[in-house]
Amino acid sequence: MIVSDGMGPAYTTAYRNFRDNPDTPEVEGVVLDDIFVGNASTYPDQVSGFVTDSAASATALASGVKSYNGAIGVDKNKKPVTSILQRAKQLGMRTGVAVTSQIVHATPASYVAHNESRQNYNELADSFFDDRINGEFVADVMLGGGTKYFERQDRNVTGEFIDAGYAYVDTYNKLATLPAGENVLGLFAEVGLPWALDDLRKNRLAYLTEHAIKHLENDKGFFLLVEASQVDWAGHSNDIAAAMAEMHDLNLALEYLVSYVEEHPDTLVVLTADHSTGGLTIGARGEYRWAPEWLQNLKQSPETIAQNIVEMDSPVAYVSDALGFELNDKEKQQVVELAKQGDLKARFAGIKALLDIRSNTGWTTTGHTGVDVEVFAFGAGSSQFYGQYDNTDIAKKLFGLLPKRAPVVKTETTPAPKEEKSQCDFETDWRCE
Amino acid sequence: MIVSDGMGPAYTTAYRNFRDNPDTPEVEGVVLDDIFVGNASTYPDQVSGFVTDSAASATALASGVKSYNGAIGVDKNKKPVTSILQRAKQLGMRTGVAVTSQIVHATPASYVAHNESRQNYNELADSFFDDRINGEFVADVMLGGGTKYFERQDRNVTGEFIDAGYAYVDTYNKLATLPAGENVLGLFAEVGLPWALDDLRKNRLAYLTEHAIKHLENDKGFFLLVEASQVDWAGHSNDIAAAMAEMHDLNLALEYLVSYVEEHPDTLVVLTADHSTGGLTIGARGEYRWAPEWLQNLKQSPETIAQNIVEMDSPVAYVSDALGFELNDKEKQQVVELAKQGDLKARFAGIKALLDIRSNTGWTTTGHTGVDVEVFAFGAGSSQFYGQYDNTDIAKKLFGLLPKRAPVVKTETTPAPKEEKSQCDFETDWRCE
Repeated sequence: MIVSDGMGPAYTTAYRNFRDNPDTPEVEGVVLDDIFVGNASTYPDQVSGFVTDSAASATALASGVKSYNGAIGVDKNKKPVTSILQRAKQLGMRTGVAVTSQIVHATPASYVAHNESRQNYNELADSFFDDRINGEFVADVMLGGGTKYFERQDRNVTGEFIDAGYAYVDTYNKLATLPAGENVLGLFAEVGLPWALDDLRKNRLAYLTEHAIKHLENDKGFFLLVEASQVDWAGHSNDIAAAMAEMHDLNLALEYLVSYVEEHPDTLVVLTADHSTGGLTIGARGEYRWAPEWLQNLKQSPETIAQNIVEMDSPVAYVSDALGFELNDKEKQQVVELAKQGDLKARFAGIKALLDIRSNTGWTTTGHTGVDVEVFAFGAGSSQFYGQYDNTDIAKKLFGLLPKRAPVVKTETTPAPKEEKSQCDFETDWRCE
Repeated sequence: MIVSDGMGPAYTTAYRNFRDNPDTPEVEGVVLDDIFVGNASTYPDQVSGFVTDSAASATALASGVKSYNGAIGVDKNKKPVTSILQRAKQLGMRTGVAVTSQIVHATPASYVAHNESRQNYNELADSFFDDRINGEFVADVMLGGGTKYFERQDRNVTGEFIDAGYAYVDTYNKLATLPAGENVLGLFAEVGLPWALDDLRKNRLAYLTEHAIKHLENDKGFFLLVEASQVDWAGHSNDIAAAMAEMHDLNLALEYLVSYVEEHPDTLVVLTADHSTGGLTIGARGEYRWAPEWLQNLKQSPETIAQNIVEMDSPVAYVSDALGFELNDKEKQQVVELAKQGDLKARFAGIKALLDIRSNTGWTTTGHTGVDVEVFAFGAGSSQFYGQYDNTDIAKKLFGLLPKRAPVVKTETTPAPKEEKSQCDFETDWRCE
């Protein structure tokens, strides 16, 4: 199961245009075009209206149950619900998550754990260790970010996993050294991974996916949750360059999975989004134009450019080089002014605005929107995913496809969570949202 | 074939939410949910970039050929291309258009005629009469608006159709009096029909569709182009209330067609949009909220409210009654100020802004956007429309479904058009765009 967080319909069309070869008259298809099957509604439980957050939608996708915004694997009465990953574990399959956010972020957390609030990251990290299914840990492979939540003064969850026999790695290169079939905790960043544009591995999601599968493969089957977490973060941040780079990372993971399913035709891959983010539109401000060619040669993310610009002797030359195109006079003047700006957010906004104007990209919000999302599927059982349905139906279809062979036992759950002060500023930091 | 002009994915989700029964926990499905089959890309010929206008997309949908923005039934070299409606006529079928714009507007014109520019409305009206296929007029039934273009000082095209044996009607009620099987020209407005919110018949598209079919049915079959033209106009105008009302008119037409196909299972209905308009988003400004309940009780369109407000003794009471909800103090103050505003556009913008804030609707443009559009189909042959493809593929699939029984003869076309001064202000009037 792949969740491309925040990937509403405009993102998939935009990515196809972003990849277009201008030397041919047609816009070339991408892997997404080959595997499109349906559309899903995303609304949360009625109490939260028509626009979902990633917790309610992940709970719906994982468990087939509508809940309130903020709910991690619990229903609207805060009762734990069983996820497809947990059911797979109950059935004796191996299970894992491979994501570009912290692994306790809303989407992976909703597949692995239960909590009344997505903001309880430390409790969620504890649950990743404390919860058991048939005496086993819920997830055998966990790849992503999050040392901040697993390696705390009050509890070293990472250490407990190591003591329990998990291989632990903190770099992509160390991940590559592990023999296949291990139980693995891989935490590659304090919170989320770097933007794809900034990371040492531009294909980090494809890489994590491939390595997760290497450790999950076994005779009884496996369930893996992959999340392109930062499509959403680019959307919250209204950063079209980062959005296209995160989409490209997803695309590389899909290309790998298409080849994997060719060799393993008994495998099903389902991809959807949990909602759309940012109110992205292809074209804006009355102009019938979208120009993704200005997004194709960035050497760093707009956020990193905004961070670095104040240290540069020649901000104009630096920004031009980092964005990958010659700035015009107006843009040069803007960059000169930005470099004097003390506030990082203002500098970041300025770099993004420059790209929005060049590409003619539109945004309506720093939050989510309620548009239906596309569903993509290939491999065994994928024909069940044609048509229009609700996001809860995706979980229900997956539950229906799981074998019935092992006894279903009740999932142990964490005790009722205590009130806890958030470690993040949820008003301003989409990475914590 | 139904084209819902401007109906990007956000419109269909929004309409489902708009129709939601708040007394049930789930969001009820609408007809669109039962008939969803696929997704289509909409980009025009490369010369026009990634964002299409309605002329290029209608030419693609009608003829399977990409062309430049503005092209009516001609390819990028301005050579006429054969539409599916014209092919149907070549094959001896009856043909018609039923639309809520003027019948020479981009979408219907691209199915019936050929012209290098959508703006040549008078030439297009002439073509509707002058073009012949196998010695017959191209369209047997033409229902919509447009007396301005058909009844001119320099040429009375309507009179020529009457002399040629067409029944002519200028009101919905007169249309109802005609015996079945007639050739009909029905022009119910000078340009486009009134907004659904203002029209005497709220179900005008369903009504025109039903009557068009009554006149088209025959042993050799028929092709009818239906257009929900004003979804697009509501989008250009960034008018969410009008958009939902136009979507409801489409929905009523679909409900009629579902019952029609149940009785006539050899009929195929395909619905798509030509593009999305306005950059509509469900939620905006950082709020995870969309509130369509404020759009459900309008007695008049926002445009008409904006027109009337200056004549009212009590603008606040009038606007409150016309919008169908009690205004809060801030809104009352806004309305008092609006009523003093001499500029109609400013008043219209004020009423729309009030509804955008109430409903938390977002827009990024007064033009079009490039997101893929959904495809819906039911009846004979509808299974061919599953999946992801280009808008030109819709025409190709339809051509493939037509019988091959009659000889294909070349379509006569209008002579190369002369330069002509537009009768519309294309900069500011989306009805002419």
